[in-house]
Amino acid sequence: MASLTIAEVNKLDSEEFIEIFGNVVENCKLAAAAVWSHKPFQDVDHLNQTIADFLDALPQKGKEGVLRCHPDLAGRLAQAGQLTAESTQEQRSAGLDQLTQDELSTLTDLNQQYKVKFGFPFVICARLNKKAAILNGLTERLKHSAEEETLAGVEEVKKICQLRIVDIVTSEAKL
Amino acid sequence: MASLTIAEVNKLDSEEFIEIFGNVVENCKLAAAAVWSHKPFQDVDHLNQTIADFLDALPQKGKEGVLRCHPDLAGRLAQAGQLTAESTQEQRSAGLDQLTQDELSTLTDLNQQYKVKFGFPFVICARLNKKAAILNGLTERLKHSAEEETLAGVEEVKKICQLRIVDIVTSEAKL
Repeated sequence: MASLTIAEVNKLDSEEFIEIFGNVVENCKLAAAAVWSHKPFQDVDHLNQTIADFLDALPQKGKEGVLRCHPDLAGRLAQAGQLTAESTQEQRSAGLDQLTQDELSTLTDLNQQYKVKFGFPFVICARLNKKAAILNGLTERLKHSAEEETLAGVEEVKKICQLRIVDIVTSEAKL
Repeated sequence: MASLTIAEVNKLDSEEFIEIFGNVVENCKLAAAAVWSHKPFQDVDHLNQTIADFLDALPQKGKEGVLRCHPDLAGRLAQAGQLTAESTQEQRSAGLDQLTQDELSTLTDLNQQYKVKFGFPFVICARLNKKAAILNGLTERLKHSAEEETLAGVEEVKKICQLRIVDIVTSEAKL
């Protein structure tokens, strides 16, 4: 991924911007498309905050939809090698490609329980959590209400997004 | 594209639903992801209306984002053969692959004026309009305000979406 300064980001037309930032929210080009007109961005934090504000402003069904655009951790797409490039790297960094058969079985079972209860998949920022923390987190979060988990999931989406943006935009002094 | 009855649609899990309906709103999987939990759908009209309601409930920037996820008519992606399958067929049905050099030049120029004025591309349901109507529509709509054009564009997105859904779901008696 090309590394851009925030000044370069601010010169992108909408098509270029969507192409580059279209997956900072997994499978949700709309997030990038919606925030483009907020430019010029002062810095990376400003870009992050604008996307976070967009996610917060979505209606409840929209927030659930954002979560449904995420793949299961170590799920069908991961096993088939069909994750997005970003998700592949992130799930690997958490050690999810190195699960024992028992761990995989537990994770698959908990994921399924979570989806049945809430109607969307469990989303957690894999780059900030190792597999043990993910399994514990999933067990804990299964106890919550759907409203709590929609909000918790969207907060994880924001963390994932921030780290993906850091991979694209170079850190620099503010304009 | 497989033809499904509404009963079959109602049995899809969220991943299957997003895979099948993920481009009924161009490049916007979130629309399908958001409405999945509204199932069971009574019929095609109910599915259409649920997506329309989702689009209407988006904040202003979200509506603009939906429009920005659409390609220019006869634009760069069309010339490069990189449109989605749906857009390729739709632009062809309007005769946009058969423009004279003068028509293409006029359309490109008007598209550019439109994007500069409004910050999103001109969106029109190409299957319901031939090239003359599209060129006239673009000229007229350039006179509007950004607010009017956001709403007009989203109404076109709904028409495009309805026709794409008709291609996927077979018409049948209500459940």
